[in-house]
Amino acid sequence: MEQKKPLSIAILGHRFMGRAHSNGWRQVPQFFDAPYRPVLKVACGRDEEALNEFASRWGWEEVETDWRKVVERDDVDVVDISLPQHLHYEAGLAVIKAGKHLFCEKPLAITSEQATEMFEAAQAAGIVHYVNHNYRRCPAVILARQLIDEGRIGDLYHWRGAYQQSWLVDPNVPMSWKLRKDTAFAGPQWDLNSHNVDLAHYLVGDITSVSCLTSNFIKERPLADDPSKKGTVEVEDAALMMVEFENGALGSFEATRFATGRRNHHTFEIYGSRGALAWDLEDMNRLQFLSLDDPDHARGFRNIIATERVHRYAKNWWPPGHIIGYEHTFVHAMADFLEAVAGNAPIKPDFEDGVRVLKVLEAGLASAESGKKVVL
Amino acid sequence: MEQKKPLSIAILGHRFMGRAHSNGWRQVPQFFDAPYRPVLKVACGRDEEALNEFASRWGWEEVETDWRKVVERDDVDVVDISLPQHLHYEAGLAVIKAGKHLFCEKPLAITSEQATEMFEAAQAAGIVHYVNHNYRRCPAVILARQLIDEGRIGDLYHWRGAYQQSWLVDPNVPMSWKLRKDTAFAGPQWDLNSHNVDLAHYLVGDITSVSCLTSNFIKERPLADDPSKKGTVEVEDAALMMVEFENGALGSFEATRFATGRRNHHTFEIYGSRGALAWDLEDMNRLQFLSLDDPDHARGFRNIIATERVHRYAKNWWPPGHIIGYEHTFVHAMADFLEAVAGNAPIKPDFEDGVRVLKVLEAGLASAESGKKVVL
Amino acid sequence: MEQKKPLSIAILGHRFMGRAHSNGWRQVPQFFDAPYRPVLKVACGRDEEALNEFASRWGWEEVETDWRKVVERDDVDVVDISLPQHLHYEAGLAVIKAGKHLFCEKPLAITSEQATEMFEAAQAAGIVHYVNHNYRRCPAVILARQLIDEGRIGDLYHWRGAYQQSWLVDPNVPMSWKLRKDTAFAGPQWDLNSHNVDLAHYLVGDITSVSCLTSNFIKERPLADDPSKKGTVEVEDAALMMVEFENGALGSFEATRFATGRRNHHTFEIYGSRGALAWDLEDMNRLQFLSLDDPDHARGFRNIIATERVHRYAKNWWPPGHIIGYEHTFVHAMADFLEAVAGNAPIKPDFEDGVRVLKVLEAGLASAESGKKVVL
Amino acid sequence: MEQKKPLSIAILGHRFMGRAHSNGWRQVPQFFDAPYRPVLKVACGRDEEALNEFASRWGWEEVETDWRKVVERDDVDVVDISLPQHLHYEAGLAVIKAGKHLFCEKPLAITSEQATEMFEAAQAAGIVHYVNHNYRRCPAVILARQLIDEGRIGDLYHWRGAYQQSWLVDPNVPMSWKLRKDTAFAGPQWDLNSHNVDLAHYLVGDITSVSCLTSNFIKERPLADDPSKKGTVEVEDAALMMVEFENGALGSFEATRFATGRRNHHTFEIYGSRGALAWDLEDMNRLQFLSLDDPDHARGFRNIIATERVHRYAKNWWPPGHIIGYEHTFVHAMADFLEAVAGNAPIKPDFEDGVRVLKVLEAGLASAESGKKVVL
Repeated sequence: MEQKKPLSIAILGHRFMGRAHSNGWRQVPQFFDAPYRPVLKVACGRDEEALNEFASRWGWEEVETDWRKVVERDDVDVVDISLPQHLHYEAGLAVIKAGKHLFCEKPLAITSEQATEMFEAAQAAGIVHYVNHNYRRCPAVILARQLIDEGRIGDLYHWRGAYQQSWLVDPNVPMSWKLRKDTAFAGPQWDLNSHNVDLAHYLVGDITSVSCLTSNFIKERPLADDPSKKGTVEVEDAALMMVEFENGALGSFEATRFATGRRNHHTFEIYGSRGALAWDLEDMNRLQFLSLDDPDHARGFRNIIATERVHRYAKNWWPPGHIIGYEHTFVHAMADFLEAVAGNAPIKPDFEDGVRVLKVLEAGLASAESGKKVVL
Repeated sequence: MEQKKPLSIAILGHRFMGRAHSNGWRQVPQFFDAPYRPVLKVACGRDEEALNEFASRWGWEEVETDWRKVVERDDVDVVDISLPQHLHYEAGLAVIKAGKHLFCEKPLAITSEQATEMFEAAQAAGIVHYVNHNYRRCPAVILARQLIDEGRIGDLYHWRGAYQQSWLVDPNVPMSWKLRKDTAFAGPQWDLNSHNVDLAHYLVGDITSVSCLTSNFIKERPLADDPSKKGTVEVEDAALMMVEFENGALGSFEATRFATGRRNHHTFEIYGSRGALAWDLEDMNRLQFLSLDDPDHARGFRNIIATERVHRYAKNWWPPGHIIGYEHTFVHAMADFLEAVAGNAPIKPDFEDGVRVLKVLEAGLASAESGKKVVL
Repeated sequence: MEQKKPLSIAILGHRFMGRAHSNGWRQVPQFFDAPYRPVLKVACGRDEEALNEFASRWGWEEVETDWRKVVERDDVDVVDISLPQHLHYEAGLAVIKAGKHLFCEKPLAITSEQATEMFEAAQAAGIVHYVNHNYRRCPAVILARQLIDEGRIGDLYHWRGAYQQSWLVDPNVPMSWKLRKDTAFAGPQWDLNSHNVDLAHYLVGDITSVSCLTSNFIKERPLADDPSKKGTVEVEDAALMMVEFENGALGSFEATRFATGRRNHHTFEIYGSRGALAWDLEDMNRLQFLSLDDPDHARGFRNIIATERVHRYAKNWWPPGHIIGYEHTFVHAMADFLEAVAGNAPIKPDFEDGVRVLKVLEAGLASAESGKKVVL
Repeated sequence: MEQKKPLSIAILGHRFMGRAHSNGWRQVPQFFDAPYRPVLKVACGRDEEALNEFASRWGWEEVETDWRKVVERDDVDVVDISLPQHLHYEAGLAVIKAGKHLFCEKPLAITSEQATEMFEAAQAAGIVHYVNHNYRRCPAVILARQLIDEGRIGDLYHWRGAYQQSWLVDPNVPMSWKLRKDTAFAGPQWDLNSHNVDLAHYLVGDITSVSCLTSNFIKERPLADDPSKKGTVEVEDAALMMVEFENGALGSFEATRFATGRRNHHTFEIYGSRGALAWDLEDMNRLQFLSLDDPDHARGFRNIIATERVHRYAKNWWPPGHIIGYEHTFVHAMADFLEAVAGNAPIKPDFEDGVRVLKVLEAGLASAESGKKVVL
């Protein structure tokens, strides 16, 4: 294999998104013939111990606690902002000023005013800028766009979207930065509807009017450091929207942290003059598609599993029909095997089990041959 | 992070399973606190060019074309056999003789006689031996076992399993090693029923009798190197089995390469005196569970998404509700971002899109505040 | 069987609802031990030929073209209004004035002002009055209410409803009374949202605020009697609502005639502090129910088929598990049998097929006995 | 409506099947333009009190306790045998001898020898003979056959059928005629596999070989009249079959009374060279259909709801999308309305509820007009 040119990455942040991004940078070269080989140069955070553990685990070469120093390093080509959203603006502008390419977690900033400033600066600087509304990169979502582009859905009439979680249903969940206005700015309108609105933009188009309804179901919660006291929840628990799109379609959005039983239930339905589409993140490899081109008597929503070679990204992973994520069973096997080598826990199935299976299979072929039941 | 002790791995084979195993060894340290850090020491194969490309891509330190040399190296602790199944026996015995731990792809060997010899040798040598029936390591399958162990299914009456693929439906699919007896020994009875029988062993128990029916739907296929000529398919296209289990349960198995529309459809249903279970690999994060303990009027199959912290392995990956595989959207984003940096293709959503989203969200909060529709 | 006291019914209207109501009155005595035996006394309509055909088919003893005469007959106990909605008001008031019990199709009237007058008059007259929001009488919907009443859902947070049809997607569908303001008053806001709002009232409670968005996707349609000319669609094609309930829950509603592929897709989701529910008319015998009382690792939406003896109405029909509507296969068989008796078309399966089946079954028992494959 | 010629029916039996058949004969004239009007002439049974109640409820004109007399009546054109299966043979032969048309419940007889005699006699007598494998008359099943006949499935490779019930899982279910060999002859092999084998005959074709496995999970059960004593279960609890079809397809069947959680779960999957089909009685209005004619990227099982005008029988019932059985909500409403008239229980929704709905709908239109939230 021709050795790819290196591209140096710096990451700001090392929590959930820091992990997800690190995994992304690490996995690209094995599965995609990308034009660069990402070098995990430096990880940045304020909690030095946690940062060191993070860098060691994910293979970041260096650590740094002052993000301003990272941004200005000559040996960094790309900065990856995986920070909480209220910190995107200041760090982002610094990255842009330093002329680095910028891979930024969503939402881009706290306000559209901040975001506009970032966009204009990035454009002026001529850098590559990306905001990570990652669900655009599900193979099934890309297939939805492809079917729309092919004209199979026709003129669009309806978007019905939802992003439903349930982590606040328990009144004992304590206060946190996500529930305070100065750090989170808003609730699910920001962190959930931002995803669903981006998909609506991607699949339907621009929005020209918005009506919205929000609510707080539980107004006070225990403080994390002193559960005997309570703090006020400052952001909405749920946000509903009805919108008009520029192309005449109507849309609805529902974002909530109080949908009991829904953990990460991100869905859309699209209805048009020639067909319809539906998708659900909790079953993310599938797209539902109905076409009026089907004959009357054989028309219904098709359950498409977007894991064929013709589906974007799918061919980079595994053979057709092997859903994305199937490979994790192998990681689990290796993890357990290592425990067995260390003598911590035996691993099964072992060779004895391998023998058991073969005896049954052999009995099967013998029975097929003889037409008789074979007793083991 | 305390640095883990290294463990040297050698891999034999570099095709589909070589990729899946390499990914497994690479991913373990980031997601699991395993007692060892796997060192990808040496990859072995006969096609030198492909082997070099494979080693470079996956980070194997060295390459070797003679597996006998690999097996005898002092600096190798574990051998991973990812070879075609008819080669497991000879290589496996050599590994065992050399006293290395052995991680072996399934099925363990071509015949139970070979497999028994391997098992007995491995046991005598005192090595760790594992045969990779990987579906035992789906969180939802482990949950099935847990529910059985907890007594929630009761005495078991029925196993109904199937492993359905469709890659031979097209009569133009050419002859290959998988269709010849000397290399594959058998058809789906070996490569598909082996998985389903292992799950039945894991979840139900030992099998005491077998009746079987096989068929060839298409008896001749074009030769790969000269499609004008045909070769004889020497292994079955489909294999059905009915079995009795030691505990009195009845079971059925269906393995086929002719189930049009099913790409990797591996399923089971289990019925017992207190409950029932159902699973489908194409929707692998879910387990269906019915309990007779539910009240009469509120009883039904529960659709459990096994991605909570309480589900084995799930907590090692992402927050609750984020299905395994969700993280691949990030890998896709990084891959496209690298293309954008190289100037090959622009990437969206960019900061302009980030602004668009925020404008809609802000209009929403303003509307919720005023009770009026906001025009953008 | 003790002979039930007769109760005389008059029906106004003989189209779709006239058929559905006639069937209802006819079927009650066979399946329910109702306190009266409905006598189908007189059917009323203006199209005399169609009315005669209708009365003959459904067994109405007499016909009448002037509804005022019907309302005043001494031998009528109950009037069933199955007329288009804009006629409910005048006829309804006359029925009430005559002191008859009133079974009225939905919506009750065109405006709430009319409806209030009807309600007050009916109450003053002391008659039994019922408005036929019939979906309250699905066993699965009643089960939803029962689970709420039992406290299994807890405090209610969210209602997400929709009633989606698609019969206007084709721009060639002509103008009709349903698309004119004087006869229909409104579009799906009236005929579809009325059903969904009634279910929300039944399951969640009173609504205290409403925001709404409507649209016309196709503004003109061909005239029915002269397709070369076009008329203006005077009612909305789709209506979205966001509401607040008195108990603090948020709700959303979507009613449309432009949801391609959805024919009669009436759905709701309810989320509360202890559980969640979901229902879909196109799969109307099932209720989805999730309970936080389930253990963490075994929690998921239960797919309850509401056809057990413990489910309201279900025991009146067929044995457990036989879904409502299963019996129609018998009606179909009788219809085809009558054709066969008339010599119009042979009917299968006949006794030859009955023999075929038994030969296979017998071969099965013989094979089970012998442990050998039996060739027929 | 032209008055149809009457056809006199006699029914033997008045239990579950007697009810289902009576309903069928009664419903035909309202929904189908059949060439005859069935006259429910005489019902026959041995329990005189139950028989009278049955005849009165279903409208049978006369009753008779001696089936021989019924068979010989001149004023009977058709005999409907709804008796337990071990009584079909003797009664059937008498009906045939008397030259009446014969509508017979399944299975045709206890043994294929009896059945053959019945078939030959019926054919010689020139009567219309029908055996009621009623599932052939589900619109979705007929659609399956139509798609096969149209060539959309191609050459058939696989049938995978099951009929799973669970009514014997509870060990306290007592002995009954269904568990004794002299009355039932066999267990689910007879009463469940007979249905599934008939569908396989209808959809796939003749069967040429059979392998079978049966079991008894619970060998003794309490006697119905003295639960302190136990009787021996004489028929199988479950029966599995593997078969070869004349056209080369392989098939499997599973019939059981021990599939916990399955109440009447009758299913099949069919795979062929051009497409695939799947059906489930518990969701009986739908057919799953996959076609290889779909483009690669948009291929998946289509969820067809067979309630369109183009689907056999569907147009005889209700408008498109209204599933068969939807009309039962009306019957329920009438039943409750009659209770209200009798003063036994109030009925809701009443006109007050009708008003409530209209107020919400009106507020919606006002809000859509003003762009403002309307407070009720």
